[in-house]
Amino acid sequence: MLNEALGYAHNNHQRFLDELFELLRIPSISAFSDHEPEMERAAGWLADELKRIGFDNVQVFPSEGPSFVYGEWLKAGDGVPTVLVYGHYDVQPVDPIEEWDSDPFKPEIRDGKIFARGVSDDKGQSYTHLKAAESFLSTSGQLPVNVKILFEGEEEIGSLNLDKFVEENTELLAADSAVISDSRILAPDQPSIVYRLRGLTYMEINLKGPRRDLHSGSYGGSVYNPAQAIADIVAALHDDNGTVTIPGFYDKVRPLTDRERSVLAKVPYTLDDWRKETGLDKPWGEKEYTFLERVTIRPTCEVNGIWGGFSDEGAKTVLPAEAGAKVSMRLVPDQDPEEIADLFADYVKKLAGGDVKIDVFTHSTGWWSISPLESPEIAAASRAYEAVFDNEPVFTAEGGSIPVVATFQKELGIPTVLMGFGLEDNIHSPNENFRVDHFYKGIDTVIHYLCFLAENEA
Amino acid sequence: MLNEALGYAHNNHQRFLDELFELLRIPSISAFSDHEPEMERAAGWLADELKRIGFDNVQVFPSEGPSFVYGEWLKAGDGVPTVLVYGHYDVQPVDPIEEWDSDPFKPEIRDGKIFARGVSDDKGQSYTHLKAAESFLSTSGQLPVNVKILFEGEEEIGSLNLDKFVEENTELLAADSAVISDSRILAPDQPSIVYRLRGLTYMEINLKGPRRDLHSGSYGGSVYNPAQAIADIVAALHDDNGTVTIPGFYDKVRPLTDRERSVLAKVPYTLDDWRKETGLDKPWGEKEYTFLERVTIRPTCEVNGIWGGFSDEGAKTVLPAEAGAKVSMRLVPDQDPEEIADLFADYVKKLAGGDVKIDVFTHSTGWWSISPLESPEIAAASRAYEAVFDNEPVFTAEGGSIPVVATFQKELGIPTVLMGFGLEDNIHSPNENFRVDHFYKGIDTVIHYLCFLAENEA
Repeated sequence: MLNEALGYAHNNHQRFLDELFELLRIPSISAFSDHEPEMERAAGWLADELKRIGFDNVQVFPSEGPSFVYGEWLKAGDGVPTVLVYGHYDVQPVDPIEEWDSDPFKPEIRDGKIFARGVSDDKGQSYTHLKAAESFLSTSGQLPVNVKILFEGEEEIGSLNLDKFVEENTELLAADSAVISDSRILAPDQPSIVYRLRGLTYMEINLKGPRRDLHSGSYGGSVYNPAQAIADIVAALHDDNGTVTIPGFYDKVRPLTDRERSVLAKVPYTLDDWRKETGLDKPWGEKEYTFLERVTIRPTCEVNGIWGGFSDEGAKTVLPAEAGAKVSMRLVPDQDPEEIADLFADYVKKLAGGDVKIDVFTHSTGWWSISPLESPEIAAASRAYEAVFDNEPVFTAEGGSIPVVATFQKELGIPTVLMGFGLEDNIHSPNENFRVDHFYKGIDTVIHYLCFLAENEA
Repeated sequence: MLNEALGYAHNNHQRFLDELFELLRIPSISAFSDHEPEMERAAGWLADELKRIGFDNVQVFPSEGPSFVYGEWLKAGDGVPTVLVYGHYDVQPVDPIEEWDSDPFKPEIRDGKIFARGVSDDKGQSYTHLKAAESFLSTSGQLPVNVKILFEGEEEIGSLNLDKFVEENTELLAADSAVISDSRILAPDQPSIVYRLRGLTYMEINLKGPRRDLHSGSYGGSVYNPAQAIADIVAALHDDNGTVTIPGFYDKVRPLTDRERSVLAKVPYTLDDWRKETGLDKPWGEKEYTFLERVTIRPTCEVNGIWGGFSDEGAKTVLPAEAGAKVSMRLVPDQDPEEIADLFADYVKKLAGGDVKIDVFTHSTGWWSISPLESPEIAAASRAYEAVFDNEPVFTAEGGSIPVVATFQKELGIPTVLMGFGLEDNIHSPNENFRVDHFYKGIDTVIHYLCFLAENEA
């Protein structure tokens, strides 16, 4: 079954590429409301393609935004797992258009790379799953596991309707695990699997002092200045070691296992890489953790913005009436984002010692997610990468969040494997591209993955 | 001599008012460059008036901005002091014009008050000195002391050319003391004399961290966030008592004498007044000083602005590349504003512990000023107020700065008596006004002052 599928895929490389080019020609930019017909054209194209390949129950679900596209093939039987594939068919805007070397919606190949908007993020990457399925269905007439596939059309504008859709369709989407190809690997010869992501609690503090801005000469020295108060508060969020001082903040942090620590130590991201990217010399933060652990598996607390008073050019002797800050915390297993919001608010309110009114509110919260390293999905993905890329993947932890992963974890109770095939690829920038060989290797990796998943389970 | 002058002034009340109205009709708004002809018209009007009254050596000095007007009467002899009178003939803009109940440049009297732009600030107040001089010269043919008088035309836009003019004309302007009527007294029945003003050192701190804004998920926890760094720095400028922590900041502060402390205690400004003005309940700051001392005779350090990262609506997970703050310090005798700038910069640079580039620069410095309570000028002014207002003046210390006072102190080596006759008067606002009886009492007070000055000296 595996070899037949791989053979079919290899024999159809050019046709797969031609089909992908068709999808790439649709300018499905979700940010522009006047592109709605293009969004629906892309959704329809994918639905037709799913039907053609042999998926059942193919549906285009209207939503407040672009439609969701769904299809399934569930005839592998009860003994094998069900995989939910997620992808998105919307793309970023193309400005500045003059920096593109070719038309973003007329894909072309140069230096072994396909150049087109959305080719890496995420049309080309997610299309590998359709071509892998086709390779099985056109040869063996069946898939090694049950597959459900879901495309959304507004990932680039914040997946505004995804949570609701998943919540309302938990039965339709029920699966044992999810897989998403919408990320990068470390290098062409170094596959990698993101096995954990951090969660987020994003807060805002607003302080009000005197009823209006005061003259700093006439009132300075007698008023607890809100701009000073916000500095006092923000300064008190960390100790000298960079450890977060919010009481209870670390209480639920799951200790890092030795396995995780050694797995993470293999990530070939060096201090020199960090230096090149940040332009800085010395990393900062918790001395008892490596700089890589600090940005991946440790919870953090960062000021995203601070303001108060006069910040234009020149000088104004004002004692500001108001000041504030935006502070977000990256969370790790098993911190509860809502509970962290409460701990933050309680602490910050106590810090505002003088006569200032303080308002603390939550902008958003999002759960961390983790695919246990010992899970059958991670094992299968690891073997699949190794089979195709001739190198063991390394396991990485991402500092940021991918909301859909947390949504699947929360609403469907399933882990997600982030099976990326991209590199840097200029995503969100001019000249977005995707290596042709990674498109093909992606299809092969998915083919292997589905087979190994079936074996692992058995 | 005194009684003749007073009699003359009283007999000419209506004419004095009519003349003031002429000056008020000239829209000498220094902020508008197209008002240059009006500025020169006002300057010429004052020069003509000085000549008419009997001043000698009357000159209109051109400058980069509006002209300076000068006149002198130096025939009182060597045995009596020379007084330098300063006033300004420029006025604030009038917007929002629709909030005026009468044309700002067509003065009219309602409820015992003259309504017109500039009537209190400073045409009406400074004109009292001309009318006092006229009252002497038209009766006794002489003044009790030597008088020099200087008007500038750009006080409302920062006296951009005053320092240079004074510096270049120290001989012309040489005097034993200065007097300025451009301030308010505490109440109609409570005259007051501002005997000291604070100086100023205004600094700006700019921090640079990573070479560009970073994603707080990918780099948070490993970078000394400039927005946190500025909070750390600002928070470290005071201790919990509100005492400034800059090493050496208080070293040169002249201890408050018992006389000053008891004199200041008589100022009828209560905590309830402060509460009404600020909208706050609890004052903040150095517990060993009264709230009034904190805003008047104690040096302070206030954040005028703080910034860094994202401050618009919503949430952005940015780790900002830059942050900064504007901080100004109010200074008291005998602090040196330049030295304080250096102490501040040294301290702040040491506070920036992590990997951030720090730039600290001085926006401006200005000297404090003080008229010793025991000086003959303060004694004469005190007697003059008491004679006219039937109440002893209280002595107040201003938290803010009046640059011209510091300029006279520095360039001419003389103290200034701030002999105000205004009340709140809506200066800088619609419906600026000045009480008619304060215009007349002002003239009487100046007449007394010049006589008492001559006596004190003798």
